[in-house]
Amino acid sequence: MLYRTWGNAKDEVVDYTNSVAGDQAILDQVKLTMKAHIISLYLAGVIAKDVTKELIKSVNSFKEIKEGYEDVHEALEDHLISQTGENGGWVGLARSRNDHVSTALRLKMRNALIELLTTMLEVREAIIVKAEENKDVIFPVYTHFQLAQPSTLSHYLLYIEEEISSRWSAIFSLMPLINRSPLGAGAIVGTNLKIDRLKEAEMLGFDDLAYNTLFATGSRSDLISPVLEVANMMSSLSRIAEDLILLSSNIVDVIDLPDSHVSTSSLMPHKRNAVTMETLRAKAGTVIGEALSLLAIYKGIPSGYDLDLQEMNAHYWNVMEESTSSLKVFKSAILGLKVKRELTDSKSLSTDEAELSSIRGKMPYRQAYFEVAKRIKEGTFESNLKARDSIKMKAVIGSPNPDLITEEIKIKRNKLKEDKAKLTSFSLKIRNGLNLMKVIEDDLLQE
Amino acid sequence: MLYRTWGNAKDEVVDYTNSVAGDQAILDQVKLTMKAHIISLYLAGVIAKDVTKELIKSVNSFKEIKEGYEDVHEALEDHLISQTGENGGWVGLARSRNDHVSTALRLKMRNALIELLTTMLEVREAIIVKAEENKDVIFPVYTHFQLAQPSTLSHYLLYIEEEISSRWSAIFSLMPLINRSPLGAGAIVGTNLKIDRLKEAEMLGFDDLAYNTLFATGSRSDLISPVLEVANMMSSLSRIAEDLILLSSNIVDVIDLPDSHVSTSSLMPHKRNAVTMETLRAKAGTVIGEALSLLAIYKGIPSGYDLDLQEMNAHYWNVMEESTSSLKVFKSAILGLKVKRELTDSKSLSTDEAELSSIRGKMPYRQAYFEVAKRIKEGTFESNLKARDSIKMKAVIGSPNPDLITEEIKIKRNKLKEDKAKLTSFSLKIRNGLNLMKVIEDDLLQE
Amino acid sequence: MLYRTWGNAKDEVVDYTNSVAGDQAILDQVKLTMKAHIISLYLAGVIAKDVTKELIKSVNSFKEIKEGYEDVHEALEDHLISQTGENGGWVGLARSRNDHVSTALRLKMRNALIELLTTMLEVREAIIVKAEENKDVIFPVYTHFQLAQPSTLSHYLLYIEEEISSRWSAIFSLMPLINRSPLGAGAIVGTNLKIDRLKEAEMLGFDDLAYNTLFATGSRSDLISPVLEVANMMSSLSRIAEDLILLSSNIVDVIDLPDSHVSTSSLMPHKRNAVTMETLRAKAGTVIGEALSLLAIYKGIPSGYDLDLQEMNAHYWNVMEESTSSLKVFKSAILGLKVKRELTDSKSLSTDEAELSSIRGKMPYRQAYFEVAKRIKEGTFESNLKARDSIKMKAVIGSPNPDLITEEIKIKRNKLKEDKAKLTSFSLKIRNGLNLMKVIEDDLLQE
Amino acid sequence: MLYRTWGNAKDEVVDYTNSVAGDQAILDQVKLTMKAHIISLYLAGVIAKDVTKELIKSVNSFKEIKEGYEDVHEALEDHLISQTGENGGWVGLARSRNDHVSTALRLKMRNALIELLTTMLEVREAIIVKAEENKDVIFPVYTHFQLAQPSTLSHYLLYIEEEISSRWSAIFSLMPLINRSPLGAGAIVGTNLKIDRLKEAEMLGFDDLAYNTLFATGSRSDLISPVLEVANMMSSLSRIAEDLILLSSNIVDVIDLPDSHVSTSSLMPHKRNAVTMETLRAKAGTVIGEALSLLAIYKGIPSGYDLDLQEMNAHYWNVMEESTSSLKVFKSAILGLKVKRELTDSKSLSTDEAELSSIRGKMPYRQAYFEVAKRIKEGTFESNLKARDSIKMKAVIGSPNPDLITEEIKIKRNKLKEDKAKLTSFSLKIRNGLNLMKVIEDDLLQE
Repeated sequence: MLYRTWGNAKDEVVDYTNSVAGDQAILDQVKLTMKAHIISLYLAGVIAKDVTKELIKSVNSFKEIKEGYEDVHEALEDHLISQTGENGGWVGLARSRNDHVSTALRLKMRNALIELLTTMLEVREAIIVKAEENKDVIFPVYTHFQLAQPSTLSHYLLYIEEEISSRWSAIFSLMPLINRSPLGAGAIVGTNLKIDRLKEAEMLGFDDLAYNTLFATGSRSDLISPVLEVANMMSSLSRIAEDLILLSSNIVDVIDLPDSHVSTSSLMPHKRNAVTMETLRAKAGTVIGEALSLLAIYKGIPSGYDLDLQEMNAHYWNVMEESTSSLKVFKSAILGLKVKRELTDSKSLSTDEAELSSIRGKMPYRQAYFEVAKRIKEGTFESNLKARDSIKMKAVIGSPNPDLITEEIKIKRNKLKEDKAKLTSFSLKIRNGLNLMKVIEDDLLQE
Repeated sequence: MLYRTWGNAKDEVVDYTNSVAGDQAILDQVKLTMKAHIISLYLAGVIAKDVTKELIKSVNSFKEIKEGYEDVHEALEDHLISQTGENGGWVGLARSRNDHVSTALRLKMRNALIELLTTMLEVREAIIVKAEENKDVIFPVYTHFQLAQPSTLSHYLLYIEEEISSRWSAIFSLMPLINRSPLGAGAIVGTNLKIDRLKEAEMLGFDDLAYNTLFATGSRSDLISPVLEVANMMSSLSRIAEDLILLSSNIVDVIDLPDSHVSTSSLMPHKRNAVTMETLRAKAGTVIGEALSLLAIYKGIPSGYDLDLQEMNAHYWNVMEESTSSLKVFKSAILGLKVKRELTDSKSLSTDEAELSSIRGKMPYRQAYFEVAKRIKEGTFESNLKARDSIKMKAVIGSPNPDLITEEIKIKRNKLKEDKAKLTSFSLKIRNGLNLMKVIEDDLLQE
Repeated sequence: MLYRTWGNAKDEVVDYTNSVAGDQAILDQVKLTMKAHIISLYLAGVIAKDVTKELIKSVNSFKEIKEGYEDVHEALEDHLISQTGENGGWVGLARSRNDHVSTALRLKMRNALIELLTTMLEVREAIIVKAEENKDVIFPVYTHFQLAQPSTLSHYLLYIEEEISSRWSAIFSLMPLINRSPLGAGAIVGTNLKIDRLKEAEMLGFDDLAYNTLFATGSRSDLISPVLEVANMMSSLSRIAEDLILLSSNIVDVIDLPDSHVSTSSLMPHKRNAVTMETLRAKAGTVIGEALSLLAIYKGIPSGYDLDLQEMNAHYWNVMEESTSSLKVFKSAILGLKVKRELTDSKSLSTDEAELSSIRGKMPYRQAYFEVAKRIKEGTFESNLKARDSIKMKAVIGSPNPDLITEEIKIKRNKLKEDKAKLTSFSLKIRNGLNLMKVIEDDLLQE
Repeated sequence: MLYRTWGNAKDEVVDYTNSVAGDQAILDQVKLTMKAHIISLYLAGVIAKDVTKELIKSVNSFKEIKEGYEDVHEALEDHLISQTGENGGWVGLARSRNDHVSTALRLKMRNALIELLTTMLEVREAIIVKAEENKDVIFPVYTHFQLAQPSTLSHYLLYIEEEISSRWSAIFSLMPLINRSPLGAGAIVGTNLKIDRLKEAEMLGFDDLAYNTLFATGSRSDLISPVLEVANMMSSLSRIAEDLILLSSNIVDVIDLPDSHVSTSSLMPHKRNAVTMETLRAKAGTVIGEALSLLAIYKGIPSGYDLDLQEMNAHYWNVMEESTSSLKVFKSAILGLKVKRELTDSKSLSTDEAELSSIRGKMPYRQAYFEVAKRIKEGTFESNLKARDSIKMKAVIGSPNPDLITEEIKIKRNKLKEDKAKLTSFSLKIRNGLNLMKVIEDDLLQE
């Protein structure tokens, strides 16, 4: 088509290498990039106002990538040429698909991350609210899947919150790296036209430039980073999903998941299978594989743009979509879960007994521990404590003691508030940039 | 719907857990499985001939999985019930989705592997034909991407053939494991109805049973095996794609890929980018990631069927399709590649010089080697040999000596012939099984 | 040192690239390869009998790779030269490190696989014996970790056996691919000396040649294959380890693992943590990662030998050692596990009730199923069946019905016997080859 | 031993599960943690000053983990008991191995990251210095490994700098997450003793707490994050290593790597193999595999401490060590590389010609492009430009134009300076914390 100057490809080759299906995901971002580029050409004095206007209108009218093109970029340029005649060919100046796709990918990732981070904030909020209401509900925590010591549902929920909140910080801290503009970097060494890369960046809401043009066009590390971190988060969620599957099983029978999260068997009518949590657990594996595909592809090529980079694109968006939808389902499961019975046993008070012997009896802990261990082994161990007593005795921040849970919630609420403010402020800055471009665009179109 | 006795799921949960989209890939195999099951119920005396006939007709009329079902199995059973009334409910006896999906997956994998193995045979055939024609075409082989010693295009091609032929044997040897019938294993412990599992297996062209019902329904290792081996093959192909990218580059300029495999830049009109080989190289990374997803998901669950297994299904077929289409494109690239110039240099004859000094001069090799090395370091090394002389001197089977290449081709042709016969015989046996079922089905339908 | 003709490396470079530590693992195989090569030079008439004798003696006296060498090959050749003078330099003829290391790796992998396969046979044997003794011990099997239907310990054990037996077949079928000789392939194109590659192969117990010299020296796919399959097996074992962790937990409390497999907490004296099974489960993750490292490295290089291949070596042996030791520990856990209580509940008989209604009452299964489902939902479901009744009603091979378990054991015993015979016969053929070389060596040394 | 109250393990089990070898890596951090804990017990009024003194002395005298223990924690406590009698048993109070190992791992990771980040700063510094000196040295940049447009060595170097600098920011931003104290979290729910977790954190130089005790003891996500990011960085370095291997090859022959980075063949005396860069490229694959092992292990377990977490430890340190040593070798290669010849060709000026036609000739770019493309296809394309002219025409920041390179260097120098200051300040804060503990310790010991 437009760029295929070496002769036409056969169908099987076109099918094999084209990215039309995948490019649908970045269509809006490619159009945005193209408009920033067109305005930049106008500001550089290369194209007249009326041509600029015509070109921008034509970009806006581009709705769909037709079959037969190599990718969205070729389809868009061809659309411009078919609508505006040879003036459409001006957009080929001072840009290449390499800087345009790199820009569009960063714009898209920025959006995807804002959505993900917003969803994570919603999950944290929901958990904190639920934690406030369940400070006295006994909940089994375990190590090695052996009942360990008494705890509460709030304590367990706040663990989840801290897990998600930590990943939130890790992902959010990658935003400044992603939010850098590659636009104007051309194919690999920039261009002979004096365009204003900083202005382009500003119009697209970027914070800074991806400076070096070889880096700007050929690197994908900034895009890989959040995917890896999301794989990390999904692995944590998989662990929690596993908890919920085990605890809601009729074998353990501690919690009830909402009916809407439960399916049954086609043969065994009594089954209540925790199907959403199983799916989430599996999707963590899928996401890990996608993350790894990115590294395996990326590791195996030399520097500069290679078409291998195009194959990476689908993996980014799959991971972002799978993780965002997983978080939404996860929130629904957490909100709806109910504790059916307060699982606890006498032996899980053994640590309290040994601690009390040690603290009150002024006996080195190991000695107290051996005495309790002996009684356990002989089968004579008993405790007069109740799970609730045990919990109230806990004396350190982060423990299930309801008073300390209140304190922990306060700290987590504050952090949540701060994080919300950070994301809002980040989103605002982006919107300001995009608004600037909208103003310029509207000015051009009105005249 | 049919099995959702615990209350309806909300949309987000349905969307998250249903497998309708993915189940399209196994629709034919699910229908085949269902027909074998219906015939089995008939043979067990549970349903009358007319009911059997009606049910089989109804299975045959099932074309599409409608929205709203959990999966293909529920949709199919509901279709039967809606068409045949309560008799449709008989198919729920002595089966569950667990044994049915496991059967369908093995049937589908069997087909996918036959297609893959057939394509591999075609690539091998094409390579051998081309190798026969290029015994004297000098071709650069390298180690550490340093020109090593003179070789020929035939020699390089036969290396590729041996790589693919080895993977062929590895994949084909997995067939007996895959081709085992889980049908009749129910959900996990079989059924109280005395159905004939061996007969079911026979009708579906299986070689043997997946005996233990827990294994039959809950294991996926047999399906993972070929995916891993395909990832291995794709990694080898990626290495060869890398060779072709490097050698066809204007920097090295040794081969020309066919125009249809080459694309250009939107900015730099001189570029001839080896886009198919880059895509293939990247798809190897994708396949590795998919294989890993399978292991990561599978490793993380307890025994027995979990919905996590459903999430694995898409990965199997992606890998099979990507690798089969990659092989087809690869064949086209290999068939069309032309040697542009015979890259060789004097230094790559250093080994021949040292070998000749050692053999003819009766000098320990290391001594001869040091003498040559010294001359190379001083810049005084020269050789009167030509690349073609060097090649003809090679004295061991497997080397580029044209006479020995002829011998190697003969061996490889024989193995190819044997492998073709093996695959044909395997496919025939399957067809015989399926024909048996067809005969039974036709008998039932005719009456 | 010996080959470093371009000037010495600085320490950090030597440390970074040398493989002395890793080469310890293949020391014996490198020596064996070198002796086959020396005998081959002798048979080709290049070195005299006394030189041959001297060189072989010197190889035999090589015990340890000293610091400062690039690898075992350089160290060995230097040892020969230091012991036998310039005659030591003859061994450099008609070989390179590339074919020697490739040979040694295949010899080592062959041994490692024989050990692994032998251990797998031992585990299968142990499981079958235990299965024979536990046909009537009720054991909970589950899907979605929800109690499914009654089963027995024997049934569960035979599932494990089929899992391991299937992987056994998959791994064993790779042996002919691994057991092919690359020796005589030189660096990449063979050699000018007419050595007998088939004779070399025979002396090392190989079945066939890795023919093409570029394949013989530059490919590692045959070595990657078994590692991938082992990762598959370890994933299956991880699932079973997970079962044992869950079932032995004080939360579920169904089985007891042997005391020697259990550790406790430093703080909580009542804990009985299933530490070996946790370690096994984790090692599956390690092995998956090692397998992936191999693919990621391999996929990212062009054809021909690259030093990247050296970095792969440690991964092979780690995987083989971790999996073999895991199997041994696994066998010990399985042998020692005891069922503490026969977990079953009334609801897990719901399927039997529905099946009986359907079969005896001539009611379509779905109707019977809905009736039972309704009673379950209303809380009125009860069953007069006992778990043992349920088991005895099972009517298909592979189910827990004790009579059918007896049949399944018979089939599995037969397959075990056959597999043992296959491995013995394979090992014998190898030993015959190596004995042939021993005879030649002894002849040479005696004279 | 100390905690094994359920009976002794057999050797194979001990060997399989103990972590003595791996714990050597965190020995110093475990001792530091223990001292903070002892001081904390003292401050809580549980142990007297002289006991405290005695215990701290005893910790300081612990040098080596003897065989036979489960892990470093058991060995250390047993050492204390053997030296101080039953008072040693006090250290078991208000702690478990779970919070201690989690603390030690974070301390160790903190150190490892400081070393890694320091090394990255050194590489960036070295690159910037070299970039300053090579603004006019023509260097081939390519896309699709096809010569693209003229560039310079400085431009290429600054691409590398931006890659490393970006990863630096990503890794550094994870530090606040890692530098949080789990100490005082006990096994899973904290302790009944009122110890001051904030004081403990302060003494160990932590910025904050890992609050929730279930999170503090059972999570490893914060430790996985930097490993994933390092895998990302290593993948980028692998691409650059690949560049250097290709460009230093005798096939391409553009650069010379330092002799110390080059090795030769045992058979082919002319070879100059880029062995360090090959090793680095391979180590990227190893690191990717290790990162994946972490995710695969972590994803597959429920919440709370499991022994699986112990198996993860070795992977962290391997990745940190391999990447730090790789960076050092990489720096040495970059510093020593020399451009041998200025590879450029007329066709790589095609873009300049088309751009000039477009800009100066006021012709839409696509038209100018097609004209040049036509001439190229016909073989009539020629350019009067020189590579140096092309470079000087580049008009955007980030391009190889030497004036703009000067500007880019200025920006990068500034960022380097800022990053150095950040790391210094972070390290200082840590040192202040540790000094505080040292002062307390010294006070106790002096009296």
